[in-house]
Amino acid sequence: MNAYSSLERRFARLDALSDAAGILGWDCQTLMPDGAADGRADQLATLHGLAHEILTASETADALAAVEEGALDPWQRANLQEMRRVHAHASAVPGDLVEASSRAISKAEMVWREARAQTDFAMLLPYLAEVLRLQREIGTIKGAALGLQPYDALLDAYDPGMRRATIDPLFSELRARLPGLVARARERQAREPAPLPLDGPFPVEGQRRLGLALMGALGFDFTRGRLDISLHPFCGGATDDVRITTRYDEADFGRALMGVLHETGHALYEQGCPGAWRHQPVGKARGMSLHESQSLIVEMQACRSPEFFEFLAPLVREEFGRDGAPWTPENLHRLHTRVEPGFIRVDADEATYPAHILLRYDLESAMIAGDLAVADLPGAFNDGMADLLGLTVPNDRVGCLQDIHWPSGAWGYFPTYTLGAMAAAQLFDSAKQAEPGILPGLARGDFGPLRGWLRAQVHEKGSLLGTDAVLEQATGASLGTEAFLAHLDTRYGATA
Amino acid sequence: MNAYSSLERRFARLDALSDAAGILGWDCQTLMPDGAADGRADQLATLHGLAHEILTASETADALAAVEEGALDPWQRANLQEMRRVHAHASAVPGDLVEASSRAISKAEMVWREARAQTDFAMLLPYLAEVLRLQREIGTIKGAALGLQPYDALLDAYDPGMRRATIDPLFSELRARLPGLVARARERQAREPAPLPLDGPFPVEGQRRLGLALMGALGFDFTRGRLDISLHPFCGGATDDVRITTRYDEADFGRALMGVLHETGHALYEQGCPGAWRHQPVGKARGMSLHESQSLIVEMQACRSPEFFEFLAPLVREEFGRDGAPWTPENLHRLHTRVEPGFIRVDADEATYPAHILLRYDLESAMIAGDLAVADLPGAFNDGMADLLGLTVPNDRVGCLQDIHWPSGAWGYFPTYTLGAMAAAQLFDSAKQAEPGILPGLARGDFGPLRGWLRAQVHEKGSLLGTDAVLEQATGASLGTEAFLAHLDTRYGATA
Repeated sequence: MNAYSSLERRFARLDALSDAAGILGWDCQTLMPDGAADGRADQLATLHGLAHEILTASETADALAAVEEGALDPWQRANLQEMRRVHAHASAVPGDLVEASSRAISKAEMVWREARAQTDFAMLLPYLAEVLRLQREIGTIKGAALGLQPYDALLDAYDPGMRRATIDPLFSELRARLPGLVARARERQAREPAPLPLDGPFPVEGQRRLGLALMGALGFDFTRGRLDISLHPFCGGATDDVRITTRYDEADFGRALMGVLHETGHALYEQGCPGAWRHQPVGKARGMSLHESQSLIVEMQACRSPEFFEFLAPLVREEFGRDGAPWTPENLHRLHTRVEPGFIRVDADEATYPAHILLRYDLESAMIAGDLAVADLPGAFNDGMADLLGLTVPNDRVGCLQDIHWPSGAWGYFPTYTLGAMAAAQLFDSAKQAEPGILPGLARGDFGPLRGWLRAQVHEKGSLLGTDAVLEQATGASLGTEAFLAHLDTRYGATA
Repeated sequence: MNAYSSLERRFARLDALSDAAGILGWDCQTLMPDGAADGRADQLATLHGLAHEILTASETADALAAVEEGALDPWQRANLQEMRRVHAHASAVPGDLVEASSRAISKAEMVWREARAQTDFAMLLPYLAEVLRLQREIGTIKGAALGLQPYDALLDAYDPGMRRATIDPLFSELRARLPGLVARARERQAREPAPLPLDGPFPVEGQRRLGLALMGALGFDFTRGRLDISLHPFCGGATDDVRITTRYDEADFGRALMGVLHETGHALYEQGCPGAWRHQPVGKARGMSLHESQSLIVEMQACRSPEFFEFLAPLVREEFGRDGAPWTPENLHRLHTRVEPGFIRVDADEATYPAHILLRYDLESAMIAGDLAVADLPGAFNDGMADLLGLTVPNDRVGCLQDIHWPSGAWGYFPTYTLGAMAAAQLFDSAKQAEPGILPGLARGDFGPLRGWLRAQVHEKGSLLGTDAVLEQATGASLGTEAFLAHLDTRYGATA
């Protein structure tokens, strides 16, 4: 077996471990009884520790050094490059630090559930502080090895090649332009009659049927995935077993519905990655900004268009046995495109959502840099909400306890949400130009034209190219704020 | 770290891998979409392969050789002995054979589901033949290392110390005495008026509530376990996460109910093992015969007693909103203690059940010995059913395709069901003598006295003692057929 083949075999084994951890992680958030938490933490720590051992074994480094690149085709070369990137990240961090971090995260996630339910930040504090301590250690060690600042080193694990130096000017533009845009959108809303409310309750079983029907219309492959329930919706699972979750509110079906559409966008990316490479690094989704662009192109670009509500309105009328003025496509569209500052990030509209991200990006950058202590997080979070959205946070449950990301060790992840929103707007513009059938298709529930374009331009590329190269090939430009801001201006009619 | 401590650490890691595989295996049989089967097979094969590498690493053998036994307490000494036993089993088999077997089993299990649904043995044949080929190879290699015949070597993995030489005379006694006992029980039944049938349907949700209520009464710890649905009921999961399953039939609630009681018996053993040792070999349940004794002491000894039906009758009347003559404790008891030869092992009454086991024991012994080819299994199975129970098997779905054991690589497992039934009768006799409150407790749904005796005599011993030593300490005798045959005679009033 030559060096490259031995590496493919080694990385396929790592993928099996990663898939196993993916299913165990899904189970942890959906079904696992509380008393199993310590054991599950041990299991995940063991899997991560073993993967780390395999990845950083001297045989891996030797094989990476021994590969003759000239003999490889472009996919193999890209695969080798990804192997080297993953190896560089892993070999920078000692195994006991990896296991300690995995264990601290599992515990903090469990405590977070309880602390959030009880609105008790003090309960979470020591566990979150331990997760942060280990993240800072990892960021520092990786940064030294990769020649990056600690925050960039963490960010690079979620979004290869992304740097604060790229993000900061983009986010500055948003910070400068969004408050005015939000104000204008709200002024316009205030001038118009309010949309008619929908009277609940909407039984969970009906909401679930509706979600499954829309997943089917979008092209979700149910032989390789599932829909379940968790407190914090996510897309997880394994390579051929993509598991998305939602949570249901009987008073409001839109929340679960839009959540399912969002996670289905992620799932289509996972299920559309190049099948022949699916257990190799090059066969994986490119990074979290592009991943988020796929969820948002479905949820925000396609499924908040007026056309989509033509398709949706009769479905929801039939499922819930309702009719009349509140159930027209127009009223449903207006209900789902309201701009209204609120406390909860995952419930935010797309115009105020970036403010939640700007805040979290600032706070986590400061915590990683050592400029903000975990004990001071609630105050800083609440100050930021007042500053960015003009809101007074009444308690930590709807404040800094609302997200699982920090307890779960996902530091450097938050900015990818808004980078993804920008990429989604940019991609959707190009998609509509290339495929005029996309918008008329949405009105009939035919997502084929959009899915086909995304498959070819994004999904099937896996990690063959970098994020920027994908965007440049698909849209002719690097990631920018123009398409996103123009989209918001157009949708919310807020141009001066 | 001394040699013994390093071994404890190593075996805790192995336990985490085993627990991870337990949850993934549970998921495979309950929730996993079909298209995920190949990937799941890779995941399980990788976990088993890594566990095998850790167990057979030279460091493990070196540490096992270096331990100073004199410095150990009795639990540690028993733990060391278990480590040596597990190590001897594993080090006999090369890693690639372990991975190949795991992969073949995962595939055969998936094909079995389809083959059974379609009553198509030919579909399963090549996959089952491959599983058998690998089991024979494993049995031969292990047998050579452990000084055992291949079948005994496989059996020893499920029931340490059990041998064909022990089983054969016990099973001969059953073979000699059971047909007459069954005939007499049926003659008596024929003389009496038939029990009144219960009119369905019985909604799944109500059956599930009932099952959960009984699990609670038995003392199942829901913070460390769950109840779910699978085609073939089982007790699996992980150390602090015991997952039992059942399947529901709306025409007959008794089937799922008794299945839940059976699996809860297994679960109580798992949840009752000594907590301080729960991630070490000595902290595990002793073996499958004793494990089955715990499921059957609940299902057959306790929960088919007249006393239990005093407790059950009002519960089922209320859950299903029924009343009248069919719903008296007496009628329910008679319905659940019918003797009637049938095709399906898991639905068999306790008097005809051993015949199903005698047949499978003969067949799997012959297949492992090379005296029966998989292609000839359906014919041999059907001949055996005619011989042992006087039944003509109409198709393989209710014949040799009914059980998952052979496709899932559990060769040498079947005899433990009937050895367990014998042990259950023996243990229940001693329990009732020691704790006169047991039977009156059952009538009130108070399982405390029985559970307390089992905790002390069986569960809390983990693997400190051998199966026979446990039975001798608890009952004053080795495993025999007397208590079991006497129990059947008494219950079915079939004494001549």
